[in-house]
Amino acid sequence: MTIQNVAIIGLGLLGGSIGLAVREHLPDVSTTGYDRDDAVQAKARELGLADRITEIAAEAVRDADLVILCVPVGAMEEAAREISDHLPGGAIVSDVGSSKESVAKALARALPEATIIPAHPVAGTEQSGPEAGFASLFTNRWCILTPPEGTDEAAVAALSDFWTGLGANIEIMDAEHHDLVLAVTSHIPHLIAYTIVGTASDLEEVTRGEVIKYSAGGFRDFTRIAASDPVMWRDVFLNNRGAVLEMLGRFTEDLTALQRAIRSGDGETLHELFSRTRAIRRAVIEEGQDDERPDFGREDHG
Amino acid sequence: MTIQNVAIIGLGLLGGSIGLAVREHLPDVSTTGYDRDDAVQAKARELGLADRITEIAAEAVRDADLVILCVPVGAMEEAAREISDHLPGGAIVSDVGSSKESVAKALARALPEATIIPAHPVAGTEQSGPEAGFASLFTNRWCILTPPEGTDEAAVAALSDFWTGLGANIEIMDAEHHDLVLAVTSHIPHLIAYTIVGTASDLEEVTRGEVIKYSAGGFRDFTRIAASDPVMWRDVFLNNRGAVLEMLGRFTEDLTALQRAIRSGDGETLHELFSRTRAIRRAVIEEGQDDERPDFGREDHG
Repeated sequence: MTIQNVAIIGLGLLGGSIGLAVREHLPDVSTTGYDRDDAVQAKARELGLADRITEIAAEAVRDADLVILCVPVGAMEEAAREISDHLPGGAIVSDVGSSKESVAKALARALPEATIIPAHPVAGTEQSGPEAGFASLFTNRWCILTPPEGTDEAAVAALSDFWTGLGANIEIMDAEHHDLVLAVTSHIPHLIAYTIVGTASDLEEVTRGEVIKYSAGGFRDFTRIAASDPVMWRDVFLNNRGAVLEMLGRFTEDLTALQRAIRSGDGETLHELFSRTRAIRRAVIEEGQDDERPDFGREDHG
Repeated sequence: MTIQNVAIIGLGLLGGSIGLAVREHLPDVSTTGYDRDDAVQAKARELGLADRITEIAAEAVRDADLVILCVPVGAMEEAAREISDHLPGGAIVSDVGSSKESVAKALARALPEATIIPAHPVAGTEQSGPEAGFASLFTNRWCILTPPEGTDEAAVAALSDFWTGLGANIEIMDAEHHDLVLAVTSHIPHLIAYTIVGTASDLEEVTRGEVIKYSAGGFRDFTRIAASDPVMWRDVFLNNRGAVLEMLGRFTEDLTALQRAIRSGDGETLHELFSRTRAIRRAVIEEGQDDERPDFGREDHG
């Protein structure tokens, strides 16, 4: 089984990048795109994000052997219902959502007969919308597949080959574990970035202008993540509630311990932690998961 | 009054960058550098971080009209005492530390007769040591001066001109306000980055390998900050305790409110905050304080 026709439902950063990546890396695969927002449809057509852009979702999936839902996780079920009557038998239905247990359930409810393989390419930027996509978004990134027990192995292999073709590395795990891993590597980092940016902008003793002027001290890094798509992230937190609350509990325990160390002047505890975390950075770079240049290679010095 | 001879005490990222920036931007100013670590001294000599590198601190300041202490804030007092008997009358003593109230007090204790103008260029990278410096580090960054009441205005003007010459913009404020502003724009961001990287590496349910593999979901940003110099940051937290604990209190209140919103499924509260924080990112970019390219312009996609 090989993927020939891909339907991309939702043409924002992820959907658009898939379309562009297919054209660059898999020229024999044809793409059909749909977005329920007319303005996004028009922009996607202008930018050529897919070979063909349709005006209704049903039309986009008619010849598909792979349908990828690229909408916020809270909108997955509705998007799946829209295509349910028009899905070819044997087509794989997948997605790119950041939480997997809730998506697996939503898709199973909407498409009880379909071959469903939830997926999550761990890639993105702080930008969103059809103009934000680019063909190399998935290069050397990990794409996690969470096939439910009993999923056709040929279908899993076909989806793996598709993502490998776009430059990604594949990992397969169960949805529950995915949600725990991503809570710590993605969801909690976003939550605390959103929080500190909110905290800083609400202060009375420090003006917003000061916060912005002196942001190069570290704060600016958090503003990037806190500029991510609000609907996407609202849905992630509502749909991965258990794992997020669990990991948030661990984080606040650790933060409280550091607070106590600061209050009591316990430099040793601080130094021990601050030394340990450097090793993680080195490993991230060695594994090809970040730019090794200082400051991410930023060019903003004039 | 114009600065002609600068002594740089401590030749890590900041001290080394000052030496290189002077050579590039202020070729008529001569620099003398000192570091108490012999290996750093040797490396600084090899890299030419200052016109002359001395083996004792006293020797470095002998002809200086400006001395800049570029050591961790907890080491300022000792560094100042080392030069106290050799400081020319009328020389300005300044520093680059991230907390200013405690440094002002430490320098006043060690050098009761000197013209002391504490300063903080809000610039840096996650790297440290003599090899990490570069001449454009201060370009378009803010340098905050916190002259104690009654400081000679000509000396403040001379120090301002010096930093402006290196490409920085100048702001003058009192030390207490500096410490509050930097607690939120720099110290708390570092503290929470160190914390989440520590939390992630201590988990049992999620392996360290998984944390690293899937770090592109947001976590990797925090690993950069959490790779910063451990001694420097230990000292910052011990020396800006009051402001850090105050701002940490605000942050944890806000985080608790979001935790409650997630637990109760209150999407509106989440969406309202996540929408608001985007504006801060735009302002940071408009003010020239960050790279506008997606993902800081990282190049790590293969």
